[in-house]
Amino acid sequence: MVRFLVLYNKPSNMEEFEQHYREVHIPLAKELPDLRRYTLSRHMTPIQGGEPFYLVAELDWDEMDLLKQAFASPQGKATARDVANLAQWSPGIRSMIYELEEA
Amino acid sequence: MVRFLVLYNKPSNMEEFEQHYREVHIPLAKELPDLRRYTLSRHMTPIQGGEPFYLVAELDWDEMDLLKQAFASPQGKATARDVANLAQWSPGIRSMIYELEEA
Repeated sequence: MVRFLVLYNKPSNMEEFEQHYREVHIPLAKELPDLRRYTLSRHMTPIQGGEPFYLVAELDWDEMDLLKQAFASPQGKATARDVANLAQWSPGIRSMIYELEEA
Repeated sequence: MVRFLVLYNKPSNMEEFEQHYREVHIPLAKELPDLRRYTLSRHMTPIQGGEPFYLVAELDWDEMDLLKQAFASPQGKATARDVANLAQWSPGIRSMIYELEEA
């Protein structure tokens, strides 16, 4: 399984960020081809390293090739473009892709 | 499902970090009561926000109460203590707990 992890800092305007995320970003991301799972987490409990992120989004695909095809699709490009809108309220977004290996 | 996310920066000495992680930390963490899944990810592809983390560890439990019990157990305390050893090589570890919500 491969995962696209997106870490958002606390938005400058939480209401506008949440409205855009809910009404624009989620519907776009849900159109990504072969997306297996899409979870969103808020209200984190920090354990180590200071303030936790405001929002953690995790998008899973079965294989790296499927993720790459999803990113390259028109839906993938539209979703990526929309991240620039979210960054208005939440600068410093960090995102990365990785394969999950069982420990 | 609840997740414990641990983000490690690139270690100062990768060999020593990896040896300790493999020989000490994984065996300790695998003893955590009711641990449902434990994945480790390396060799990340950065998408946004500069250098990706070196290692992402994700430990899942079915419910928050089970995670809390695992953290409070002797195995949980031993695992938490061992993170201080890992921080020798990888300062700035960030970790947090959250519930997964389907988007």
